[in-house]
Amino acid sequence: MKFVSEDVAARVVTMAEAIEAVEAMFKEYGCGLATVFPVAQGHGPDEGTSFSIKSGLIGASRKVGLKVGSYWPGNRARGLAAHASTTLLLDPDTGYPEALVAASHLTCLRTAASDAVAVRHLSRPDSRVLALFGAGHQAWFELLAVREVRSIGKVFVVNRSPQAGDAFARRIREELGIDAVCVSAQAALAAADIVVTVTASRGPLFDAAWVRPGTHISAMGADQPGKQELDTALVAGASLFADVVQQSLAIGEYEAAHKAGLADSGRITSIGAVLNGTPGRTRVDQITIYDSSGMALQDIAISSLALRKADELGLVLTP
Amino acid sequence: MKFVSEDVAARVVTMAEAIEAVEAMFKEYGCGLATVFPVAQGHGPDEGTSFSIKSGLIGASRKVGLKVGSYWPGNRARGLAAHASTTLLLDPDTGYPEALVAASHLTCLRTAASDAVAVRHLSRPDSRVLALFGAGHQAWFELLAVREVRSIGKVFVVNRSPQAGDAFARRIREELGIDAVCVSAQAALAAADIVVTVTASRGPLFDAAWVRPGTHISAMGADQPGKQELDTALVAGASLFADVVQQSLAIGEYEAAHKAGLADSGRITSIGAVLNGTPGRTRVDQITIYDSSGMALQDIAISSLALRKADELGLVLTP
Repeated sequence: MKFVSEDVAARVVTMAEAIEAVEAMFKEYGCGLATVFPVAQGHGPDEGTSFSIKSGLIGASRKVGLKVGSYWPGNRARGLAAHASTTLLLDPDTGYPEALVAASHLTCLRTAASDAVAVRHLSRPDSRVLALFGAGHQAWFELLAVREVRSIGKVFVVNRSPQAGDAFARRIREELGIDAVCVSAQAALAAADIVVTVTASRGPLFDAAWVRPGTHISAMGADQPGKQELDTALVAGASLFADVVQQSLAIGEYEAAHKAGLADSGRITSIGAVLNGTPGRTRVDQITIYDSSGMALQDIAISSLALRKADELGLVLTP
Repeated sequence: MKFVSEDVAARVVTMAEAIEAVEAMFKEYGCGLATVFPVAQGHGPDEGTSFSIKSGLIGASRKVGLKVGSYWPGNRARGLAAHASTTLLLDPDTGYPEALVAASHLTCLRTAASDAVAVRHLSRPDSRVLALFGAGHQAWFELLAVREVRSIGKVFVVNRSPQAGDAFARRIREELGIDAVCVSAQAALAAADIVVTVTASRGPLFDAAWVRPGTHISAMGADQPGKQELDTALVAGASLFADVVQQSLAIGEYEAAHKAGLADSGRITSIGAVLNGTPGRTRVDQITIYDSSGMALQDIAISSLALRKADELGLVLTP
């Protein structure tokens, strides 16, 4: 049995490596070589707590395992993160547990990596201006991921709290040396080549008419019934992509449009299909939307990578 | 993060303690203080492999977690066990992973402990003769469990292979000093007070007419659709008990009788209800049947016990 701690996992995987691992997994998934199993949900003893168990198999590269993601909102009052993630990898040859990987940081990385894969294959190659809706913990990872695949020269931050948005823009300027400012949604969209939404919103963040032709949008927030970041009119008129098509319609960004009769599986292309040759963006003036609702295979791919890299560096613990 | 290895887990929990822990859990479950969450199923890269993820919450004692049980039949060719079990316990206060407990031995213990709870509360107190159908790995644990709660003076082993049955009877005589012999089903049932079936059978092991009035039967084998150890005529005429009533009808011993219209949930009493005061055996000449199909709460209860005991003895590993 091997153990990769949170500290080690956060040190050994770079964003660039995370993007390559997630892209390779999506490519296997897109040609039927990877499988997601049904999700199990449970809860703890106290009101409001919940956990999910998501498992999967990346067949060609023989990776199998599960991720437990917990949400204990009372943690915040004690200065602890409400979310925690842990991956258990099974030995593909025996089914025995192979490694436990503390995966809270890796979950942030793999989510942002999914965004970067979409941006790389769906946004215009000359995209330079990013509009980032949200200024939370995950927003920072999204920014780091997008700039791995596009030369971002300007970031417009849009946030419910302008104070937090200003602070986030300042952090971008200071830590990354990228020009950044907190502005209104309409101002951000008037200039953006790429839009990333990473909020817990339950309704549209902006008017569909404000989006320029040729924009790529990655909708990262919606991963539960009722969550929504984009106007259904925007979804109705755009070219649609997703990590897991049926999940996007059921619990992701396309749920609202689906219920309104404006989106169905025939209109949505999986990112895995794009990686296997199905056309993605075909015109410069096309609006593309990518919905990420998340899947266990991302966790298995990135945790396997963290295990391999920690092993190479002698940082795996074997209790 | 804490680890309890297979070796430590096998050393620190006695059968008597396992029985008390499982009985306490069933009592909480019986009065609605414990919850089982839906099971998730998956598989590995090779044909025939499978795993299940079962999770649950024992609310009053604040124990929450999940068990991964894997079945990789190809292991046998390499001299490894096909089944493996691992329990991940979550900290009830934070949702963070608390301990990983290697639970292959504990799974054998908790299954047998369930049997012992039923025997203690459903068999005649003066029961002395045990008929044991099956002579495999789990049969030994069942015997150890039953003799914790009843003064077993004689064991009749019934087995498809008489050679293996003879060897098993010899082991009982030599290691436990209990009179034991391998005989036919009819001969065993003519003398038995308690019957334990622990086979992978997919049809009745014996004729209903051979069972004496007053016998208690623990049917431990059936835990998947199509598995069956008892004659439906026997089920039709007996008083029925189970660990999880709906599960017994769906995938356990009562599935066949249910499909034949001979058993429904109204006829089956949960062992948890018996522990909370619902009558179990009410007459000396009654035939009682207990079906164990297994539940995650047994795993959580016994793994929590192993963690506590290993902690007390300084045997927990903390990488």
